Formats: sequence, C-alpha cells, structure tokens
Amino acid sequence: MILYDYCRSSAAYRVRIALNLKSLAYEQRAVNLVSGEHREDAHVQRNEQALVPVLEDNGMQLSQSLAICEYLDEAYPETYSLLLGTPLERANQRAFALAVACDIHPVNNLRVLQYLVGEMGVDAEKKMQWYHHWIHTTFRALEAKLQKRKTPSAFCCAEQVTIADICLVPQVFNANRFAVDMTNYPLIKAINARCLEMEAFAKAHPDLQPGA
Amino acid sequence: MILYDYCRSSAAYRVRIALNLKSLAYEQRAVNLVSGEHREDAHVQRNEQALVPVLEDNGMQLSQSLAICEYLDEAYPETYSLLLGTPLERANQRAFALAVACDIHPVNNLRVLQYLVGEMGVDAEKKMQWYHHWIHTTFRALEAKLQKRKTPSAFCCAEQVTIADICLVPQVFNANRFAVDMTNYPLIKAINARCLEMEAFAKAHPDLQPGA
Repeated sequence: MILYDYCRSSAAYRVRIALNLKSLAYEQRAVNLVSGEHREDAHVQRNEQALVPVLEDNGMQLSQSLAICEYLDEAYPETYSLLLGTPLERANQRAFALAVACDIHPVNNLRVLQYLVGEMGVDAEKKMQWYHHWIHTTFRALEAKLQKRKTPSAFCCAEQVTIADICLVPQVFNANRFAVDMTNYPLIKAINARCLEMEAFAKAHPDLQPGA
Repeated sequence: MILYDYCRSSAAYRVRIALNLKSLAYEQRAVNLVSGEHREDAHVQRNEQALVPVLEDNGMQLSQSLAICEYLDEAYPETYSLLLGTPLERANQRAFALAVACDIHPVNNLRVLQYLVGEMGVDAEKKMQWYHHWIHTTFRALEAKLQKRKTPSAFCCAEQVTIADICLVPQVFNANRFAVDMTNYPLIKAINARCLEMEAFAKAHPDLQPGA
C-alpha cells in the first residue's frame, strides 16, 4: 500500500495509526500542504478534493480518512479491529470519531484558517480565538461524554483502542500545537497519554514522518 | 424509534431519508435550533454536543448522522442497505458521504455562520461569500468525481441510492436555499432530481416536517 501523506495532517495521522494497529505495511509519499503540492495535477488525479490522505491499495485510490479506516476493517478483517462489539457500541465509537472528524477538524484545518485570514480579513488573534473556540466546544462535550460512561474504560469507548481514539489523539496533538488549555479535560488527557505509549501511535507521530 | 429533529438541519434530513429508505417507523420530536432549544438541558442530556439529530432506539440515544446510518444498516440488515458491494465500493460511498458531511456541512452550518458574524465581525456579504466558497470547493470536486466514473450510474455510486446520495440531497437543498449557482454541476443536479422523485426522499423534505 502507498499512503499519500503529510506529517502534520490530522487526517493522515489517523490513517497511519490505523495501518500500524492493523500491522499493515505501507510506503509513504509526502504531499506538502504548506507548499501547495496537494493542489498540483498529480495529486488532484488521486483525489479530486486535493486533500490528504490518499491510500493506494491494489492500484485503487481511496480518500477520506474515516472511509479508509472502515475499508481497512472490511478488507483486512483478520487483523486488529478498529470497531468493536454490538451495533450500538460501534455506533458510539463512530459517533465519537465523527465528533472530532466533522465538528472540530474541518472547521480548524489549514485551508479554513488560511481563508479566514486571507479572504475574511480576520487577524491573527481572532484566528486563534476561532481555533480555540471550536476545539473547546467539542472537547467539552466529549469530556462530558467520557465522564458519563456507566463503565469507565481505559480508552474512549472500550478497554482497547477503537476508531474513537484514532481520531482523538491527532486532535489533541493539534490542540497542543496551538497551545489550547487542556486543564478541563482530564479524561481526554489520560486516554491520549495511554495511547501515546503504544507503538502504533508512537510510530505515527508527526515528528517521525517524512518531510517533518 | 424517536428522532429528535429539526426541519432545516441537513444532518437530521439525512437520517429521515435513511429511516424512510429502510421503512423503519419513527416518531419525530422537533428541537428548534433557531430558538436555541438544542442548548437546553433536556437536549444536552440526550447529546452532550447539543446537536441534532439524536435517534432513540430501545431507549438508547445515538448521535452523529453518519454513525446513525451505519447503525441502522448493522441493526436492521434485513431492510434496505445504505452501503453496497465490495469493501472498495463501500469505501467510495463513504468517502462521497464524508466529503459532504466533513468538508461542507460543518464549515457552513448555523452555529459556524452565527460565530462568523457575531464573534469574528464578518458582514452579511462576506458570510455569503464564505458559504458559497465551501460549497463550490467540494461540489467542484464531487462533480469531477462523478464525471470520472468508468461506468456512470443513476445515483452517485451505484444504480441504487447509497449513503452518498443521502448526504448529497440535503446539501443541494441547502445550497439552493442560499442561492448557490448550480450551473456547473449537471451530474449533481440530475442525481438530486432523481432522488427527489423517490418517496423516501420526498417525505423527508424539510418543508414537510413538524415545526417547518
């Protein structure tokens, strides 16, 4: 498999964790989002949305990190499962993942922040306020969700890592990069720390990727 | 089942379509996003994120529209399938759905537009520019994806409706409401029109919901 990747992309970071958890070998090709390589023809041919990650498997190109994770579970069911248990449990794992993947990440990603500053005329301070606002809005809800669990587990939704943790960890990395105050999120912090001790997460860390 | 719903929420509209396609009976309870009912305790108890939709099934409350759709497919496999075919085909259906659900809807939804105006000081004209920009960015990519299909099908990803179409139709409704020029999206328009002819879509239309 080939993963078209960028070291600091949260969405690509999720797929690296998923591939590592499932012990699937992959080659990485860096697509530099800062220099604009993702908007070049070669990458748009892979993904009309001009986003990373793109996973190439058997010559087919897949986009959207959560669709890729679901694909990996369906195409390689003999390896680690990213979703576990009953339909209800799986729905909770997916809902947690989607809260990050829909309600934080797309509102705070590089292209949106660039548009805020470049086209909306928002200054650097207001841009940071925007970033922090959307992180806190959803982290508050997720921390409350974790607090309310009837049987607290080591990870977000189970005693083992699921797609929920795969989305949480890159978002916490990003929050730390933007100096978000994490004081009110003790459960999120504890789960994040537990994940980072695992090799699948450690190896996926942005600082260790090509182009970092 | 009880669906906590709002007539003009794109995410709730998706779940109404999914429930109708699967011929599952549900009761609707309107949660008025304009008057702020979603931020009241009663609703936050159901969903810490204070968003709609929430689906209650067997007393359990589920959030995030795409997690709900996946749940319905897993819990009620004997009815219409919202995802079809091989892992690769299903990945394409999910990726299409996620392009709308991650890359358009959360950036353009009511709370984000309100924050742009209220906290970022963006004026009405710039707000509309923002809205149109993010619709066009992803619709251009999705139209190109539809054009590139090796075997064009009646719907986004297959000869029958999948989760991709369930996400597309509410987004086109929203685009029309904001007077987005759809001239460059003939395939999106044709698929949307085909869907609207189906009873499952027609019955889910915002104008026909409680509180509309």
